Amino acid sequence: MDELALFFVGTGGSVPTPRRGLPAVVVRFGGERLLFDCGEGTQRQLMQLGMFGEFESIFITHFHADHWLGIPGMLKSFALREREQPLTLYGPRGLGDLMRTMSVVYGRLPFELGLVELEPAQSVERDGYAIAAIPVAHGERTAFGYALIEADRPGEFDPRAAEHLGITPGEDFGRLQHGETVDGVRPEQVMGPPREGRKVVFSGDTAPCGALVVASHRADVLVHEATFADAELERARETSHSTARQAAEVARDAEVRLLALTHISSRYSGREVRDEAREVFSATEVPRDFDEIEVLFPERGPAVLVRGSEREARAGGRSRQKGDPAELAPADAEPVQPPEHAHEGITSP
Amino acid sequence: MDELALFFVGTGGSVPTPRRGLPAVVVRFGGERLLFDCGEGTQRQLMQLGMFGEFESIFITHFHADHWLGIPGMLKSFALREREQPLTLYGPRGLGDLMRTMSVVYGRLPFELGLVELEPAQSVERDGYAIAAIPVAHGERTAFGYALIEADRPGEFDPRAAEHLGITPGEDFGRLQHGETVDGVRPEQVMGPPREGRKVVFSGDTAPCGALVVASHRADVLVHEATFADAELERARETSHSTARQAAEVARDAEVRLLALTHISSRYSGREVRDEAREVFSATEVPRDFDEIEVLFPERGPAVLVRGSEREARAGGRSRQKGDPAELAPADAEPVQPPEHAHEGITSP
Repeated sequence: MDELALFFVGTGGSVPTPRRGLPAVVVRFGGERLLFDCGEGTQRQLMQLGMFGEFESIFITHFHADHWLGIPGMLKSFALREREQPLTLYGPRGLGDLMRTMSVVYGRLPFELGLVELEPAQSVERDGYAIAAIPVAHGERTAFGYALIEADRPGEFDPRAAEHLGITPGEDFGRLQHGETVDGVRPEQVMGPPREGRKVVFSGDTAPCGALVVASHRADVLVHEATFADAELERARETSHSTARQAAEVARDAEVRLLALTHISSRYSGREVRDEAREVFSATEVPRDFDEIEVLFPERGPAVLVRGSEREARAGGRSRQKGDPAELAPADAEPVQPPEHAHEGITSP
Repeated sequence: MDELALFFVGTGGSVPTPRRGLPAVVVRFGGERLLFDCGEGTQRQLMQLGMFGEFESIFITHFHADHWLGIPGMLKSFALREREQPLTLYGPRGLGDLMRTMSVVYGRLPFELGLVELEPAQSVERDGYAIAAIPVAHGERTAFGYALIEADRPGEFDPRAAEHLGITPGEDFGRLQHGETVDGVRPEQVMGPPREGRKVVFSGDTAPCGALVVASHRADVLVHEATFADAELERARETSHSTARQAAEVARDAEVRLLALTHISSRYSGREVRDEAREVFSATEVPRDFDEIEVLFPERGPAVLVRGSEREARAGGRSRQKGDPAELAPADAEPVQPPEHAHEGITSP
């Protein structure tokens, strides 16, 4: 079973704050890592998460600077560290021109940089999943949300039915589950109907958007922007952003299982945003930087928000047993720094 | 008497680390704020220092991305916050082209952006001080260090000499000290010789450099890069950088009062770099992000390194009395973050 988890690398919007970095989310899906958006400072946030450089795809929602300006410096850092693994950037039309303009920052790269401009509704097919570009409503230029759609999983195997049909438990059970016919028994005789894969949707920046409601239908997690509170509805409309209440309405209409609000402005506390959304849609969370959402298979339970602080508490205990560098350093030479400095892991203590 | 202090906003080099951001130093000089270099992520580091946007000049040493890539995003943030105060960028020839290329990031600005390309050895004259561009040795393109040179101060007033010449203590003392002749007594009769102002020099990135030794002669503080340890001497030479030992030799030859090493690579701990330099030049410090150096008038004592952690301890006490937002937030809604998140001030606890 493939683990699927979202790591919120930066949860602010437009302008960073001391609490919230600019937009970036890492999706860890089995052995793969995908980055969605990459605002200024993302490379350092990734280092603090212990996830720097571990991905080969970056999906950019649109070209407002807070969503991509972390890329050129990160490419330069990869070059300085002599990365060899190819990296592919995906985004709306214009991506190639933008990155060529930015090559003044990163110069020649020692690895292959792919630049893929997606058309609205185009899908990137991967082994076991696809990522679809959803056209959203954020000004005149094309802006995307993205839906990560896991392929259908085989139905549930019924061991009693198989034994009833004369199959001996053991290897033959496995062969049936992998789609082989065994002694005349066909897989569909002992397997339930295919089960839907999981789905995670990122809104990018957008006004409330019908295409997103459709794409998010029964998603396990919808990560939606909530740049404004409802008191600023008019301003949200003018700037093609959403209020927390509007994001919650999208989540409700799409019947998603969990709504995670992000792109939080420095105007608001996470609590204000959360409380407003929960009036409409109770399964709402407002992750902070370094928080994680584990997306379980539906039959295992709902997606779960894990605070970075909780993970750090666990990891910190382990790392200290192995000899925390901060504890080994003499206090007069390199005193202990706050957690994000002292540990290789995550920030919150 | 004007306060002169350096705030180390980012002390890493080339690639950020969890501990060290990319190069940036704020100089606070009386009521003015000057920023020297501005790597990616500087705007957020400045927010954590409580110094975001409080300056009207940025001096760029050279055009490797780690020294300027924080500017375009910061300009965008200023625009979003509707800054009106003009901002002037200074740097080597090429600054204008670079910033025009980067305008794809920040678009139209609601404030005046000045772009001033300096010639080697050119000075920017300000009220009471000057900033001189020092040509340093960092590859083929022009790279600068900068010397901030305070104007000479008047000599010391001798009240006994004045009384001896028939001047009555009070207003007339002040008039003499401000350069007026009083009852036939000329200021030079009662004032000592002019006293040298303070001097702070930034090396930028450079191999050991004669021009820097000359410019740094008897400087109060020399902020010098130390990208490598001496074991990597050959690599330092190839990349036109300095080792910690070489930086210390510059400081020794220039007879500076305090050497502050920066542009520290993730390869080394601050302690290694410091110990190597101190073998050559004992008055060496290796500031961390958010540390401060107070530059006193020479007769008041040497420049002093103040750890961010010490300042935070003082400020934290005060801010909590005023009602720390982290303490007011209910634990289940917006739990207390690590110090750099919880406080408006600096990072280290």
